[in-house]
Amino acid sequence: MFQDNDAKSIRRSLNLPSVLHLLPRLVQTAQSLARPPISSFHVGALGLGSDGCVFLGVNLELLGLPLHHSVHAEQFLLTNLAVHGCPVLLALVVSDAPCGHCRQFFQELRDAKSLRILVTSHVQGNIEKCLSFKPMSEILPNPFGPHDLLDQEIPLLLEPHNNGLSLLPKNAVYVEGNSSNLCNGNCELSRGNDNYGKLSNGNCENAKKDEVLLRKAALEATNNAHAPYSGCPSGVALMDSEGKVYRGSYVESAAYNPSLGPVQAALVAYVAGGGGGYESIVAAVLVEKEGAKVS
Amino acid sequence: MFQDNDAKSIRRSLNLPSVLHLLPRLVQTAQSLARPPISSFHVGALGLGSDGCVFLGVNLELLGLPLHHSVHAEQFLLTNLAVHGCPVLLALVVSDAPCGHCRQFFQELRDAKSLRILVTSHVQGNIEKCLSFKPMSEILPNPFGPHDLLDQEIPLLLEPHNNGLSLLPKNAVYVEGNSSNLCNGNCELSRGNDNYGKLSNGNCENAKKDEVLLRKAALEATNNAHAPYSGCPSGVALMDSEGKVYRGSYVESAAYNPSLGPVQAALVAYVAGGGGGYESIVAAVLVEKEGAKVS
Ligand SMILES: [Zn+2]
Ligand SMILES: [Zn+2]
Repeated sequence: MFQDNDAKSIRRSLNLPSVLHLLPRLVQTAQSLARPPISSFHVGALGLGSDGCVFLGVNLELLGLPLHHSVHAEQFLLTNLAVHGCPVLLALVVSDAPCGHCRQFFQELRDAKSLRILVTSHVQGNIEKCLSFKPMSEILPNPFGPHDLLDQEIPLLLEPHNNGLSLLPKNAVYVEGNSSNLCNGNCELSRGNDNYGKLSNGNCENAKKDEVLLRKAALEATNNAHAPYSGCPSGVALMDSEGKVYRGSYVESAAYNPSLGPVQAALVAYVAGGGGGYESIVAAVLVEKEGAKVS
Repeated sequence: MFQDNDAKSIRRSLNLPSVLHLLPRLVQTAQSLARPPISSFHVGALGLGSDGCVFLGVNLELLGLPLHHSVHAEQFLLTNLAVHGCPVLLALVVSDAPCGHCRQFFQELRDAKSLRILVTSHVQGNIEKCLSFKPMSEILPNPFGPHDLLDQEIPLLLEPHNNGLSLLPKNAVYVEGNSSNLCNGNCELSRGNDNYGKLSNGNCENAKKDEVLLRKAALEATNNAHAPYSGCPSGVALMDSEGKVYRGSYVESAAYNPSLGPVQAALVAYVAGGGGGYESIVAAVLVEKEGAKVS
């Protein structure tokens, strides 16, 4: 991600008429950051936020898992805005035609139909001379979306969420039917993991502190989750071998299947936040509602 | 599903100008057959195949599982054609706007762009007087699809597939790097299940026969699977409490996430084949390649 000021100064130094013109220049670099071990198909996306920042999106594929665990570059981009609290995506540039799944995912934005999009592989000639963005409504006409299912005042993606959940006391007994605002927070500290060993110095006190920290972070992520359809928000917090924490909030789609799980969202935060190989992730906490209809 | 002749005689008895006019008449009935315990949003679809048969599609949601395990009515419809070996879907009618995920799933058909579609909730006035179908290319322009990734001669969905897999000898040792045409066939016979007990009379010989039958059916399903992107086909066979077998073949999408898993495909065969509650499913076999990149 480039901050507002950085994006402006890069634009000036490249002598481009606007920050929007910067986006296509960065697509190839974005593609090189993708992690698609199954398809080897590198997709890169760049978005301009209402805060003036430029956000990155790349595709992630997870080896050995079913393909619906993949994260598309456009989903990465939107999650990256959410991680940084940017409230509106103004325009995006992507290396390849967005698939239907992503066009659907964008419908979770308040003004999805007017979001402007440019596919660099569809442009012939000098892209910066004729920066022809299309509105989303042209590439997914008559969409199914939140308006088919939700009241107008329910917050959509990138709008402030507070799901008002708190953690169950540890080792609490689960009481069915009385759990609407309580959730678990199951913790996976890879104590057998050498990297985690280094972090905690094999020290039990440190491990307990980490667990408290991660449970708190995962709860925050859960309270920011967008799950208006199922009412079952969830969140994940990851810790890397240097003790840095990454949060991921579940993002639900009105069309269900394009929903992005909290693990995927946390991996976006990890990759976007400069995380290296996944083997450097040494601990994880998942928080979800007890007795959730969707898990 | 209505057979060719049945569809024609129903059309005549209702005095409709064509079998296409029959489809909107059946949408409400289709909706009533949907199984959406999470959303309670009933979607129904009807399709006309090139063999003159009318096929059903309904949405299925699986309680307690992540939402990407859901089957949309349009996916159900296409899988239903595959189960019955119908080679071309000519037109479909659906109760609600197809989501982007489904518009993407349709791209796996050879002539996706000319597939004709009608959304009944978008029609005002007498639907049968003005049966205005739109081509898929209008509702998903400039799609990402198989043409972006595959050679022209590779079979697409509903075209004949033979993945040429055979089963590993039972209890065979898995040999890494030497498994390209061998697969497993893990069997789950619910021996603790009362219904299964009735079926096999608690008889060990019968249970073994069932397992052989199911492994064979799941292998057939695997060899019919559409998995050109990962090269990792899979299939499932289910048995109900009356000993009837249902096959489901994995259907992969060029956009990965809209792929339909073999369990879901087998559930489509079960529901379309008159299966009752899921609790009547007493045994299941999954076949997939050893060492698959996608599992
Ligand atoms: Zn996509
Ligand atoms: Zn759909």
